[in-house]
Amino acid sequence: MSAPVVGMLGAGQLGRMAALAAAPLGVRVHVYAPEPGPAMQVTDLATVAPYDDEAALAAFAAAVDVVTYEFENVPAATAAFLAARVPVRPGPRALEVAQHRVREKAFLNAHGVPTTAWRAVDSAAQARAAAEALGVPCVLKTAAGGYDGKGQAVLRHPADADAAWARLSRGQPLEAIVEAFVDFTCEASVVVARGLGGEVAAYDLVENRHRDHILHQTLAPAPNVPDAARVEAARLAAVIVDALDYVGVLGIELFITAAGGVLVNELAPRPHNSGHWTQDGAATSQFEQQIRAVLGWPLGPAHTRFPTVMTNLLGDDIDALPALLAEPDAHVHLYGKLEARPGRKMGHVNRVQPPVGSAG
Amino acid sequence: MSAPVVGMLGAGQLGRMAALAAAPLGVRVHVYAPEPGPAMQVTDLATVAPYDDEAALAAFAAAVDVVTYEFENVPAATAAFLAARVPVRPGPRALEVAQHRVREKAFLNAHGVPTTAWRAVDSAAQARAAAEALGVPCVLKTAAGGYDGKGQAVLRHPADADAAWARLSRGQPLEAIVEAFVDFTCEASVVVARGLGGEVAAYDLVENRHRDHILHQTLAPAPNVPDAARVEAARLAAVIVDALDYVGVLGIELFITAAGGVLVNELAPRPHNSGHWTQDGAATSQFEQQIRAVLGWPLGPAHTRFPTVMTNLLGDDIDALPALLAEPDAHVHLYGKLEARPGRKMGHVNRVQPPVGSAG
Repeated sequence: MSAPVVGMLGAGQLGRMAALAAAPLGVRVHVYAPEPGPAMQVTDLATVAPYDDEAALAAFAAAVDVVTYEFENVPAATAAFLAARVPVRPGPRALEVAQHRVREKAFLNAHGVPTTAWRAVDSAAQARAAAEALGVPCVLKTAAGGYDGKGQAVLRHPADADAAWARLSRGQPLEAIVEAFVDFTCEASVVVARGLGGEVAAYDLVENRHRDHILHQTLAPAPNVPDAARVEAARLAAVIVDALDYVGVLGIELFITAAGGVLVNELAPRPHNSGHWTQDGAATSQFEQQIRAVLGWPLGPAHTRFPTVMTNLLGDDIDALPALLAEPDAHVHLYGKLEARPGRKMGHVNRVQPPVGSAG
Repeated sequence: MSAPVVGMLGAGQLGRMAALAAAPLGVRVHVYAPEPGPAMQVTDLATVAPYDDEAALAAFAAAVDVVTYEFENVPAATAAFLAARVPVRPGPRALEVAQHRVREKAFLNAHGVPTTAWRAVDSAAQARAAAEALGVPCVLKTAAGGYDGKGQAVLRHPADADAAWARLSRGQPLEAIVEAFVDFTCEASVVVARGLGGEVAAYDLVENRHRDHILHQTLAPAPNVPDAARVEAARLAAVIVDALDYVGVLGIELFITAAGGVLVNELAPRPHNSGHWTQDGAATSQFEQQIRAVLGWPLGPAHTRFPTVMTNLLGDDIDALPALLAEPDAHVHLYGKLEARPGRKMGHVNRVQPPVGSAG
C-alpha cells in the first residue's frame, strides 16, 4: 500500500495547513517552492527549485499523484509543463481566469455572475475615460499580480488617473482595470469545493472585516446577511465552479449591497484566508476538502458545527500567544514563520462559540 | 522569534499525532528513534540513531527545549542521560513506575489507589503459590515489556503456573506479577493532563472494548458508568498525577466493577489510544494537551464537545477507507504505515455524534 502523494506548489501557510490536513488521511504532501517555507516544516517531502527548472519539475511530477497549489500566480508555463505529466487541479483554466482581473470579470459576466461595473484599460487616458464613464470614486487595479490591496489606486477624480497610472505602471506597458465603487453593506465570501465527479459543497457565507486592506476577521456564518443573499451566493458559487469545470477549493470574495444583492469581487483558486474558520468550526476543514477534491475522493460535509470568529495574527499580534493559549475555546494556528514583520500573516485564531442548535 | 522545539523519543503514530498537533501552536517536533517511522513523515526535524548513542542523544538534547516520549519503554539510561541536559517530561519517576507492573501496583496502593489483588513473583513456584492465594482464574504477567496482551498467561489452575512460567521466562530470570481476575462490568480509562504548575485537566471517563487484547473501540463518554464511578475515577487520576509530580498526559486504564467500584489496571505515561477520540470530540486534543503540558504552557479545556466513538483500524481494516471517507461525521486518522500487517494499528476513525446539549 503506497500513500497517495499530493504535489503542492508553494511553501507558505496554505500549503502547510494542507499538509497538516492531509496526514490524517494517510496522504503525503510534496512541497515544491523556490525557497524553503513554512510548509516544508511539516513534511519530509520537499523540492527547493525555481518554477522554471524543468528537470526539477519533471522529477516532482514523477513523484506525485496530482499537483495542486496554494497561490494563484503559478506561472502558466509551470502549470502547462506539469499538466502534461500529471493531473493539475484546479486546472489551467482556473489559473488563467484568477490570475487576471479582466479575464476574471469577463468570465464572470459571461456566465451571468454579477460584478461591479468595470472597464479594461491599458493607458492613463483610458483609465481617465473609464473613471468618467463609471463615475468617481472608482478603483484602478493592475490586471495581474496584486494582493492585499497592493497594485491598486483609488481615483477620486478622473484626473487622478495620470498619477495613479504612472505609479502602477512605472513607465512599463500595463494591463489594468477600472472598477466602479460598490456601495456595499458587507464584504463577504463563500468557500466552495467541487469534486472530480462534479459534486459541489459550499461552506456557509461569511463576513470579512479588513484592516489596511488585509483581512482582519471572518465571522462565520455572516451575522447580518439576508437569507436570500446567502442562497444567491451559494447559487453563484455553483455556477462558477461548474463553468470552470473546477476541481478543488475555491475562495469567492463578494460584496453584499444595501439592496441585498450579491456581486462577485474576486476568485482565489485555492483555500482562502476567509475559510480558515472551517478548521475548527465546520464538519470538514477547507484544507481536508482540498486534499479530498484534488485526489478525486468524496468531499466531506461542509456544514457549520460552531459559529466561529477567525482573527488573523499579523506581525506583533503573535506576542499575544500566551493570552491566546490561556483562552478557552480559542484555537491557535501559527504558521512557523521565523520573522514577525509588520503586517505579515503569522497565524490566526479561531474562537468557536456554542454549537449550532445548542440548548446550553 | 524562534519556535519552541519538543524532542520526541519514538517515531510511531503517537509521536506523529503529537507533531501534527504541535505545528498549529508554532511548535516544532524533533523526532528521535532508532528507525524511521510515521512521525518522521510530518516533521523535517529527525534523528535516526540508537537510544544508547550518546553523541546523537547529546546533539538531540542541545537541539530541543524539552524531551517527551510516545512509549513507556524508554531505556532508563536514555532518560537519565537526557534529563541531565534538558527537561524530560513526564519525569523519570513516571517511567520507572509505568515500566514495571510490580512497582506500578505498589505505587498505586501506597497512595490509596485501589487495584486488583496481586503478588510479585520471580519463580514458577511463587506463581503457583500466588495463584493459590489469589484464587483462579488469575493472570501471570511479566513485570516489564508487555503490551496488547503480550507477556501474559491466564492461570486456570495453580498447576498452570509451571508451563506459563516456562513460556514467559524462556529459561531466563524473570520478574513477574500474578493478578487476581477482576469481575468487571466495563473496561474504562481516563486520560488526564497535569501542567508544570500542578493544574490538572481530566477528560471524560470512556469505555474501551477490546478484541484479541487489542483496543477495538472507545465510547466517549462511557455510556453506562454510574456518576459516582466517574467522579471517583477523576479523583484517582488527580491523586496519581499529583503523587508522581507528573507533567504531561497520562493514560489510566481502569476496571469498573459490578458494585460500581473503580480499580486501576495500568498507567501509560503518554497519550493513550483510548484518548484518540479527543482529536474530534473534545475541546482540546490529548496531543495538543501533551505539547502544552510539556512546554509548561497552560492546559487547554478538556470538556467533551461531541460524544464520539473511536474505532481502531487494524491491518486490512484500512481497506474500508473509501467507505469511511464517504461517511459523514467520520474523521479518519491514518498513521502512514506502509505495510498493513494483521493486527497492526494502521489508523483510527472518530465518529462524532450530535453535540452535547444539542436541540437538533
